Amino acid sequence: MAGLLTRLVEALRTLPGVGPRSAQRMAFHLLERDRQGALDLAAALGAAVEGIGHCSRCRALAEGDLCSVCADPERDPRLLCVVESPADQLAIEGASSYRGHYFVLMGRLSPIDGIGPEDIGIPLLLDRVEEGSVEEVILATNATVEGEATAHYIAGQVQALGVPISRIAHGVPLGGELEFVDGGTLTHAFAGRTRVT
Amino acid sequence: MAGLLTRLVEALRTLPGVGPRSAQRMAFHLLERDRQGALDLAAALGAAVEGIGHCSRCRALAEGDLCSVCADPERDPRLLCVVESPADQLAIEGASSYRGHYFVLMGRLSPIDGIGPEDIGIPLLLDRVEEGSVEEVILATNATVEGEATAHYIAGQVQALGVPISRIAHGVPLGGELEFVDGGTLTHAFAGRTRVT
Repeated sequence: MAGLLTRLVEALRTLPGVGPRSAQRMAFHLLERDRQGALDLAAALGAAVEGIGHCSRCRALAEGDLCSVCADPERDPRLLCVVESPADQLAIEGASSYRGHYFVLMGRLSPIDGIGPEDIGIPLLLDRVEEGSVEEVILATNATVEGEATAHYIAGQVQALGVPISRIAHGVPLGGELEFVDGGTLTHAFAGRTRVT
Repeated sequence: MAGLLTRLVEALRTLPGVGPRSAQRMAFHLLERDRQGALDLAAALGAAVEGIGHCSRCRALAEGDLCSVCADPERDPRLLCVVESPADQLAIEGASSYRGHYFVLMGRLSPIDGIGPEDIGIPLLLDRVEEGSVEEVILATNATVEGEATAHYIAGQVQALGVPISRIAHGVPLGGELEFVDGGTLTHAFAGRTRVT
């Protein structure tokens, strides 16, 4: 293969989930059928890297100093939802019932990988809570071992500031059939049961 | 989502096999963990679109006027292998037993999609054969209905020029178990059987 083509295939492989064969297929597709698309993608990549930074209040991806949620006066400043990643935040926004603020950790505690509290912005989170407007911290980290450990750590830190902390419920997903749900989820579902009458 | 992020996700979706969720995951990955990779990809895309054109002799992707195969004096000019796409050419080069030249159709005949002989460069192919150095045209289009129809059409055109034409063999793939091979392939395998003693 020609040098520029090899370089393009290698560059496409940096995308998550793209192996050598998909990268080759993408490169041929762009060069044979969608050269304008390739230029648009190049421009979008450059503009995104140039223009998208992190919100100074919540660490979410933001085009300016503040993200759209932090800059929105309509959002409830008393609720602060802690999530691991912008993708998690987007999922919650997609469900669209939550109208409070967010704090995006951009990771989770992982001592094995050398990721400690500073790396996921815990000091900034504590400063935010200490400001005084937050009346409830909702922990919405993932239901994985590391997500649980991160939630547990944050709960311990925030508790000292006297602000109520909650954890999103874990249980059987809507539409989920008990038969196919794992034991851990069922245990959570039983422990978190609510009275109906 | 912010405007630049939406634009990036939309641009990533033009890649083949990338849906909305993968595109979002790619965008977040690049922005959170691999901004240099994003810039490298943007540069590689721009350089490839700018620098890669088509070989004037065989229509393959090429950085200059001629592709590396057409420019290589070591290749046998008496053999001309007709393939549908650069990916097919790459697969044959990977098997590395063929040392002749190629002609890349960049498509296949498909009347339904309005793709006729001119669109796949048949006039250029006939000019090439008429030059006189080609002593055998090997048809290596895909073993699909459209690939077969394209091979049949080219055979009819080249035949008039008096140059021998061959079609690559279709049969049971190496390592293939008869039990799991489809009937069409088995029919080809029987029709194309060769004597061993």
